Amino acid sequence: MNTRIDDLPVRDELRGKSPYGAPQLDVPVRLNTNENPYPLPEPLVERIAERVREAARHLNRYPDRDAVELRTRLAEYLTRTSGYEVALANVWAANGSNEVIQQLLQTFGGPGRTAIGFEPSYSMHALIARGTGTGWISGPRNDDFTIDLAAARRAIAEQQPDVVFITTPNNPTGTAVPPETVVALYEAAQAAKPSIVIADEAYIEFSHGDSLLPLLQGRPHLVISRTMSKAFGAAGLRLGYLAAHPAVVDAVQLVRLPYHLSAVTQATALAALEHTDTLLGYVEQLKAERDRLVAELRAIGYEVTASDANFVQFGRFADAHEVWQKILDRGVLVRDNGVPGWLRVTAGTPEENDAFLDAVRELKKEQSA
Amino acid sequence: MNTRIDDLPVRDELRGKSPYGAPQLDVPVRLNTNENPYPLPEPLVERIAERVREAARHLNRYPDRDAVELRTRLAEYLTRTSGYEVALANVWAANGSNEVIQQLLQTFGGPGRTAIGFEPSYSMHALIARGTGTGWISGPRNDDFTIDLAAARRAIAEQQPDVVFITTPNNPTGTAVPPETVVALYEAAQAAKPSIVIADEAYIEFSHGDSLLPLLQGRPHLVISRTMSKAFGAAGLRLGYLAAHPAVVDAVQLVRLPYHLSAVTQATALAALEHTDTLLGYVEQLKAERDRLVAELRAIGYEVTASDANFVQFGRFADAHEVWQKILDRGVLVRDNGVPGWLRVTAGTPEENDAFLDAVRELKKEQSA
Repeated sequence: MNTRIDDLPVRDELRGKSPYGAPQLDVPVRLNTNENPYPLPEPLVERIAERVREAARHLNRYPDRDAVELRTRLAEYLTRTSGYEVALANVWAANGSNEVIQQLLQTFGGPGRTAIGFEPSYSMHALIARGTGTGWISGPRNDDFTIDLAAARRAIAEQQPDVVFITTPNNPTGTAVPPETVVALYEAAQAAKPSIVIADEAYIEFSHGDSLLPLLQGRPHLVISRTMSKAFGAAGLRLGYLAAHPAVVDAVQLVRLPYHLSAVTQATALAALEHTDTLLGYVEQLKAERDRLVAELRAIGYEVTASDANFVQFGRFADAHEVWQKILDRGVLVRDNGVPGWLRVTAGTPEENDAFLDAVRELKKEQSA
Repeated sequence: MNTRIDDLPVRDELRGKSPYGAPQLDVPVRLNTNENPYPLPEPLVERIAERVREAARHLNRYPDRDAVELRTRLAEYLTRTSGYEVALANVWAANGSNEVIQQLLQTFGGPGRTAIGFEPSYSMHALIARGTGTGWISGPRNDDFTIDLAAARRAIAEQQPDVVFITTPNNPTGTAVPPETVVALYEAAQAAKPSIVIADEAYIEFSHGDSLLPLLQGRPHLVISRTMSKAFGAAGLRLGYLAAHPAVVDAVQLVRLPYHLSAVTQATALAALEHTDTLLGYVEQLKAERDRLVAELRAIGYEVTASDANFVQFGRFADAHEVWQKILDRGVLVRDNGVPGWLRVTAGTPEENDAFLDAVRELKKEQSA
């Protein structure tokens, strides 16, 4: 029987759509998904095996539904790195920040409600909105990819969204959002109606500036979303988390699937948190490489968006996809996020970044020849 | 600031609700959540540590988004145990069968659509419906907890649900649904409108009868949901999966969160699948213990619902919750699922089951005294 997706009774808004995901190509240098290029250090690998072995001895039992030890350690990490006191009751964790955001939209968005994001931004926000039946509003940015505060305020006042996404540093542009902009957007959002503001800080450890965590003080509708995928070099672990008022943590438990976070995930994340200092050392190396990429790309003659993340947006190209292909032809995979005129490259190891820079230097020469 | 859940802009249907979950009490004998009482054998624990160590060496990279190796091994397991040929393209996996069901409802249910289940049944079906904005219809059962086919057909014809849940063996009653009933319900559902029928086989390995897998032949709207939590003794792993027409597998990828299944989860599940025969040996022991529980409870003088699962529903009580408390006072935790007059006990180790039987024997004597 030759049944296809559209022969099934799928929801109308899914018809004709394709699954999200960057093409995974077998290429020598992969700088397309903002992964941390440094494998976990071997002592941490051993510690993971050890903690998982211990967890496996109780695997016939359900995991700690509330992930108390893990959330306690995450709270300590946030407190230590931000100087702002975060407690167990402020923290929630899930399978990747995507699931954190899905739970937030199930709780505070959903059918008959809307969310706004300032685009281009992390495209999963809009996709998770669709998956949860939340209406999506595409908010504006300036030409330099900073948030146009006046236009953003107008959009919030007019559209009265239930959820406001602020991605900082922004993906795919790398743009940090200043705290005063976040405060202004929070106030604009609350003036329109009681609404939740989600600051997605997936890349914050790579920023020149500080986390927005201190803004949680006195703002019970602000949520800071985080991940261990990037700074902790653990994209394969799928561990996202949030910090917010304890009432928000209570609220998402109304929609979280019970026992959503497996015992092996909790054990692995706990092992990684024991090695925080080593992993943050890699972050410092990557920040230096990111700054080098920005400087060299500019020296070569490309336009570069100021970056606070572990990736760099560069351009501008009449046909970005054509350039993407030419870079790929030289063995380097970067990302075409569909932002007209721009491509995104992840900061890799020094050797990977050299390979990328050689490739785009060649292209520039060809172009000038 | 004393903000509470209901001070936040949560969705109206969540107001006043509590999170799902059995009370987790520190009691000598816990027979309340249908966990497998046998810890994983030590060679499997070692194999998990080994496979996770290997996975941890690549944890900085995203996991296999399509979990190809894991789905291939799950397909082989289904083929081998059912005799019905299941291929990679027929199988999808997620973080627990709860997430499988959530993805199915996001794809085929959702706002403006409805799902029906025949209650009492696994209460997460209704909760996941609520979480995905799917309207919930409570279908009928006979007094002996079998499905009332005539009434079920009428309900389907009248209500025209988009999704039909059939839990077999049913939780919390233990009741198996005969294949001919499933076929009749499938046909009734298709006659009403194109709709998806989800057979939740979480406990099928404990059944006296066979899996419904062969019914997939020629039924592209039938989905069989499975889990490694029970038969594989891996509740802590959170690995659920489904078998269906390849178009269904394609369709759920429109709503699945990308990289939803971590590399450590995939590695652990693959290790467990290498030890299938040992784990299915424990299943045979548990089936014998389940049958002993049924026989002894009846001998003591309780009513017992025929069970094809790793748990037994017994009663009938004027006040089931009072009896639940009295059993708990004797150090044994069973489950009050809210089915008036009935309680549910999980088949544990022989020693645990003896402790439970001693407790309820005592109660019966007190009652007769």
